[in-house]
Amino acid sequence: MKKNILIIGGSLRAKSFNKYLASNLIEIRKEKFNFEIFSDFNLLPHYNTDDHNQDNWPKTLLELEEKIKKADGVIFVTPEYNFSVPGYLKNCIDWISRLPNQPLDRKPVCIQSASLGPLGGARVQYHLRQILVFLNAKVMNKNEIFVTFAKQKFDENSGKLTDAITIDFIRKQLDAFYIFIDE
Amino acid sequence: MKKNILIIGGSLRAKSFNKYLASNLIEIRKEKFNFEIFSDFNLLPHYNTDDHNQDNWPKTLLELEEKIKKADGVIFVTPEYNFSVPGYLKNCIDWISRLPNQPLDRKPVCIQSASLGPLGGARVQYHLRQILVFLNAKVMNKNEIFVTFAKQKFDENSGKLTDAITIDFIRKQLDAFYIFIDE
Amino acid sequence: MKKNILIIGGSLRAKSFNKYLASNLIEIRKEKFNFEIFSDFNLLPHYNTDDHNQDNWPKTLLELEEKIKKADGVIFVTPEYNFSVPGYLKNCIDWISRLPNQPLDRKPVCIQSASLGPLGGARVQYHLRQILVFLNAKVMNKNEIFVTFAKQKFDENSGKLTDAITIDFIRKQLDAFYIFIDE
Amino acid sequence: MKKNILIIGGSLRAKSFNKYLASNLIEIRKEKFNFEIFSDFNLLPHYNTDDHNQDNWPKTLLELEEKIKKADGVIFVTPEYNFSVPGYLKNCIDWISRLPNQPLDRKPVCIQSASLGPLGGARVQYHLRQILVFLNAKVMNKNEIFVTFAKQKFDENSGKLTDAITIDFIRKQLDAFYIFIDE
Repeated sequence: MKKNILIIGGSLRAKSFNKYLASNLIEIRKEKFNFEIFSDFNLLPHYNTDDHNQDNWPKTLLELEEKIKKADGVIFVTPEYNFSVPGYLKNCIDWISRLPNQPLDRKPVCIQSASLGPLGGARVQYHLRQILVFLNAKVMNKNEIFVTFAKQKFDENSGKLTDAITIDFIRKQLDAFYIFIDE
Repeated sequence: MKKNILIIGGSLRAKSFNKYLASNLIEIRKEKFNFEIFSDFNLLPHYNTDDHNQDNWPKTLLELEEKIKKADGVIFVTPEYNFSVPGYLKNCIDWISRLPNQPLDRKPVCIQSASLGPLGGARVQYHLRQILVFLNAKVMNKNEIFVTFAKQKFDENSGKLTDAITIDFIRKQLDAFYIFIDE
Repeated sequence: MKKNILIIGGSLRAKSFNKYLASNLIEIRKEKFNFEIFSDFNLLPHYNTDDHNQDNWPKTLLELEEKIKKADGVIFVTPEYNFSVPGYLKNCIDWISRLPNQPLDRKPVCIQSASLGPLGGARVQYHLRQILVFLNAKVMNKNEIFVTFAKQKFDENSGKLTDAITIDFIRKQLDAFYIFIDE
Repeated sequence: MKKNILIIGGSLRAKSFNKYLASNLIEIRKEKFNFEIFSDFNLLPHYNTDDHNQDNWPKTLLELEEKIKKADGVIFVTPEYNFSVPGYLKNCIDWISRLPNQPLDRKPVCIQSASLGPLGGARVQYHLRQILVFLNAKVMNKNEIFVTFAKQKFDENSGKLTDAITIDFIRKQLDAFYIFIDE
């Protein structure tokens, strides 16, 4: 039976390799998964409980909550900014964390990152993992996806992932995630 | 001679203990330092280079750049959100990192954090330190300031720090920072 | 039905608070668990595959492997040395990681730490968690146990844990772990 | 004037790429530095203050203390074991940390790591940096050296570093370190 996956990811930029990566996921294992992408980070204001609270959450947050709740699993696809999680993604997680029935609690999660440089986001993933301990998500350990030197691995016009080795790694991660969701 | 310090900190909430902490700093060693506080995180949009760039930086970013440049040192005073740096503060750092003459480069920095709970922000400080490696700031190692159980250490009405041990720790950190700035 | 737990922990010192903590665990939920403690870190040489390998593992490693295999779950109880995992414990994990059927793979794990100071080992646990991602252990997120100011919480002669709040926290962690093992 | 550098590194294995890396350093900037290598991790027992203390430190520790004291700077060259610092290196640091006049205090330090895989030790360096905060070392931020896919970059027989790009990166790091030592 197909699993429903919410991808939280991409970046705010139009031509982001992490956005491309998120889009490509949809094709790689469509026989096993239905994917939806959330990347409306921009519609969430800076988290501030003076202005917003339970009676008055941002509309985008409530929509995101619904998407997470009905998903069988969540995949974070994120760039690394300054050796850590981008501010807009952390802000999104800060909002999620305050929901009364926090939807990432016990939710199966896996992580991918892409970078222009040689490390593929190796630092952001461990910061994100520590954050997800607090959220009590059920985060898959392996295999990990670090897309290094992203420029060489995507078609710059179409955004299509063209690197066979990367596609194979992702396929293996998705197959592992399919099983992990039910464990 | 007095040193000029920019405090980047507090939080967006009006009654934040980290805001109180930042305000109290100003009094603790005023004979050695002139302090200024930046906490207009809210005036910086989510970082997105499609909309903003060198020809068009947010006005608040340019003001912050000037403040950092003319400061002898920067003190980050921050809460911990979800075991890491709050989204709004990370967003602010993401902006700073893109300035052509990135002003935190080689800038003396020290860190403080306060929390309601028992760990006083022990996790956020090490994430922030990793981020500041990328920014090439000159971050002081010791002593570290973790204000635990903040509710018991501030007067809730005035926001005044009343705990003598904490005041003494902060005094020692500021004295060390005074020397560290010139090293 | 009772679960079998292997505690990997304590320290090499005779009067270690983490050793006391490990011993106290045995009493706190003995109706639900059978506990065994491994703390023979000293019997494992520094990891070096030139001298030891599959044909020639240290005897202590093979015994530890058996203990892990037959346990339903593992609890690490560890001090923090220099903001991270003690060398002897990391060495033990480095050995475990090279076993052909690495026994921590998918093994339910939880973590405790105690310190003389105010943070209770807040830094060591997140380093250990990152290490356990590589080992593919199934690490419980919550609740976390940080025993702060350990001197005040144990009877110094008997090593008995006397602090009611800490006992209650541990009880809750063990109860959560009992369920987590089967999830 | 030439600076004296102590390299703490390599690994216990004879044919370790990190050992090769340490050896190659000596040649790359010999006009600016005198290098000495410490890699006798094996001669330090597991750290235990019951057996050793100020009256009775291991001889190797005292020799290492002298080497650190007379060095102008220290370079750690280390593999990554299980996403973190190898046990034997952490054990060595645990010993150093207990010396009455702890010799890494304020000592200029930089870090290199090599791995067979694609990340070059990206995770070990940040754990080591956190550890060195406690030791109060003065750790250089940039540039960072991650030798990825080490097998392709060294001559397997002689251990000579043959990759021009890596040599250039190391040269730049050493030149930066030369200046950093005096800052």
